[in-house]
Parts: sequence; C-alpha cells; structure tokens
Amino acid sequence: MILGRVYGSVVSTHKLESLVGSKFMLVQCIEKGELVEKYLVAVDGVGAGIGEDVIIAEGSSARIGMRNQNAPVDALIIGILDEKQA
Amino acid sequence: MILGRVYGSVVSTHKLESLVGSKFMLVQCIEKGELVEKYLVAVDGVGAGIGEDVIIAEGSSARIGMRNQNAPVDALIIGILDEKQA
Amino acid sequence: MILGRVYGSVVSTHKLESLVGSKFMLVQCIEKGELVEKYLVAVDGVGAGIGEDVIIAEGSSARIGMRNQNAPVDALIIGILDEKQA
Amino acid sequence: MILGRVYGSVVSTHKLESLVGSKFMLVQCIEKGELVEKYLVAVDGVGAGIGEDVIIAEGSSARIGMRNQNAPVDALIIGILDEKQA
Amino acid sequence: MILGRVYGSVVSTHKLESLVGSKFMLVQCIEKGELVEKYLVAVDGVGAGIGEDVIIAEGSSARIGMRNQNAPVDALIIGILDEKQA
Repeated sequence: MILGRVYGSVVSTHKLESLVGSKFMLVQCIEKGELVEKYLVAVDGVGAGIGEDVIIAEGSSARIGMRNQNAPVDALIIGILDEKQA
Repeated sequence: MILGRVYGSVVSTHKLESLVGSKFMLVQCIEKGELVEKYLVAVDGVGAGIGEDVIIAEGSSARIGMRNQNAPVDALIIGILDEKQA
Repeated sequence: MILGRVYGSVVSTHKLESLVGSKFMLVQCIEKGELVEKYLVAVDGVGAGIGEDVIIAEGSSARIGMRNQNAPVDALIIGILDEKQA
Repeated sequence: MILGRVYGSVVSTHKLESLVGSKFMLVQCIEKGELVEKYLVAVDGVGAGIGEDVIIAEGSSARIGMRNQNAPVDALIIGILDEKQA
Repeated sequence: MILGRVYGSVVSTHKLESLVGSKFMLVQCIEKGELVEKYLVAVDGVGAGIGEDVIIAEGSSARIGMRNQNAPVDALIIGILDEKQA
C-alpha cells in the first residue's frame, strides 16, 4: 500500500455505469513523512476528506475492497491515518 | 487511476481476434493539472475524443470494465472529466 | 518480491472492516544490501519487528497470503531474512 | 498498453513446460513516436517480426490473450501497428 | 517479462508456510545486454544457478507458474537463457 494526502477530487458525468456513485479523489503520495512528486486518483472507500492522510491499495485489491466488485477501479482509499509512527 | 489527455489513436489491422472493435487511444498523463512526460495506450470505454481529459484504470480492472472480459487489455478509459477540482 | 527493512508502523482506526486486525508496517526498500529511497506500506504476515529485514510480495499475491483473502491488501511481509547471501 | 519496436528474440531451452512453443521477443518502448530507454520481453501473440512496431499488454491480461492461459507470461504482443496517428 | 542475472539468494527460516521449499534468488536486471541498477527477488522455478541469465515473469503470472498456486509469490524465474539474440 502507499500513503498519501487527499488534495481534491475530480468529477466525471460521462463514465462507465459501474462507476456511478464512486468518488474520485486526487491524492499526493507521502514517503518518510513528506509529500513527494507522485500523484494518483483513488476511489474513496472510507469517507476521506481533503487534507486527510490515507492508506491506498492498488491493483486488483482495490476492486476487492469495493462494494461493487465489477467496478473497474485500480486504486482505493482503504483507511484514514490516525497518527504516523516513524 | 491516472488522469490523462487523449492526443491520438493507433490502428492495428493485424491483432488478436478478441480485440476487434477496440479503439486504441494515445494518452499523455496529467499530474497536478499539468501534462507530464508519461504516455500509455488505453482502450476507449466511453467515446473519448482527441483533446479530452480522461480517467484511466490499469491492470486487471481495465479488463473488468470491457464488454468482452476476454480481451487482453491492461488500460481502459473509464470516464471523461467534467472539470478538475484541485 | 522485494527486500526491505521495517522502520515503523501506521495506525488507522477508520478503515475498511475487512482490514480490522491487519498491522500496517512502514518499509524502506533494500537493493544490493543497501537501503534505497523507496518506501511502501505492507501488512505484516509473519510478526516482523522494527529493524528487521523482510521479504515482501506485492499485488494479488499479497492477498493470497492473507488469512482473509477478501482484505484489499497489495503488499504483504511474507518472510523475515535470516542472513543475506550476496 | 504500451507501444514498442521488436529488436530481437531470446531462446531458452531450459524453461517451464507451459512455455514450450512461446516465442520471447525483445522489445524497446516507443513514446510520442520515439524509441525510449525502456525494454521488456514479450511473448509474441500475432507473428511480429524484427523491426515491427507493436502494441503490448502487460500483467494478467497478457495471460488472458494466450492460447494456454496457464502459461506464466506477463507481457504479450497483441497487435502490429499499421500506422501511428499522433 | 524481464531479463536478469542471478547473483545470490536469501534465506528466510521464519516465513509463511506456503513458501516452505521455495528458493529466493537475488536477480539484477539486464537491458540491451547490460546489467542495470534494478534488482528484485524471484522464486526459482527452473533450477537456475548463480551467474546464469534468466527470464522472469512478474505479478499473478508468477503464481500461475508455481507448483503451489497458493504461494504468495510475485516474481518467478521461468527460463534460463541459452543465448541472447540482439
């Protein structure tokens, strides 16, 4: 998994039907406690808000964590960080 | 998922049969609202046109979003962006 | 697989239910016997402690190694290194 | 998918049995119409020859496109380019 | 797939049970006939020795090539190179 900070979201009205209801969050990656120049779009699985630090699962595991496992999703926010120990 | 802008397409007459009817779009990635030097080829799942900004799912999830799930496809345009909030 | 050293862990109270009980370890990658500037978060499958060198499997194989194969996990610590021969 | 140019092949007599009959092509990646310093080995699914530009699918989708879906293959040439429009 | 040269192995007594009997080889990647600064750990599927050049499959395909498909493995040596043509 990777760590990142949510900094926004994108809206797509014209999308595959299996994605209706999915919220696409913009995430900047965090390594060793610092934001780095890596970015991705992840579907929100836990109600994360802008500015929150999150854990993201990628690949087929993202799909496994969705309510609709037929959604073609490759990155999912699976948890919000409480505190970081490192 | 990643964000990108469609800048063209490629044609392959000689391809695997399961891919007949698939349109291969050339996409340049977008990070933090700017085009970056990363490129990929994605099958179009939503009728995206040249110049449009899109959301792309990669890996096995691309296949899940295809009508023909036996198509050996690893990147799929799953939505067209309305507006970007970040 | 990749090699890495565990340097901490993160806590997420607010996470997907299938992840309750999973411990998220912070890992720095090791290449050719040296720590490199690559980082990831891996679920602990073997009871690894801080400072230990471990083997990590990524992708769908991480899920296969979990007791709960519905957990949306993409990196798993699958072994602790005894000694490194290289 | 990625685009690339076939520049050779490798022979492995001593390989897993499920791979007997697979042809391993050496491919250099193409981005924005130019060869770049990225290389991979892909099994040929369409009869591609040296010097031809091809489309390659990676990951589990490569396996889906093989006649033998038990072959442990992670990259497959799925089409030969006619012409490139970009 | 990728090409690489085996340069050692690692031993892990404390590992997941499904991995007992798997041999973890240290591999340095080869691109265009030269060793490059990329490294990975791959399970040996063909009896490769130190100094030999090999073909490696990554991701779920690595698992498919294992006798035990429940082993959480993401890279497998699937063949030993005879000679390289390029």
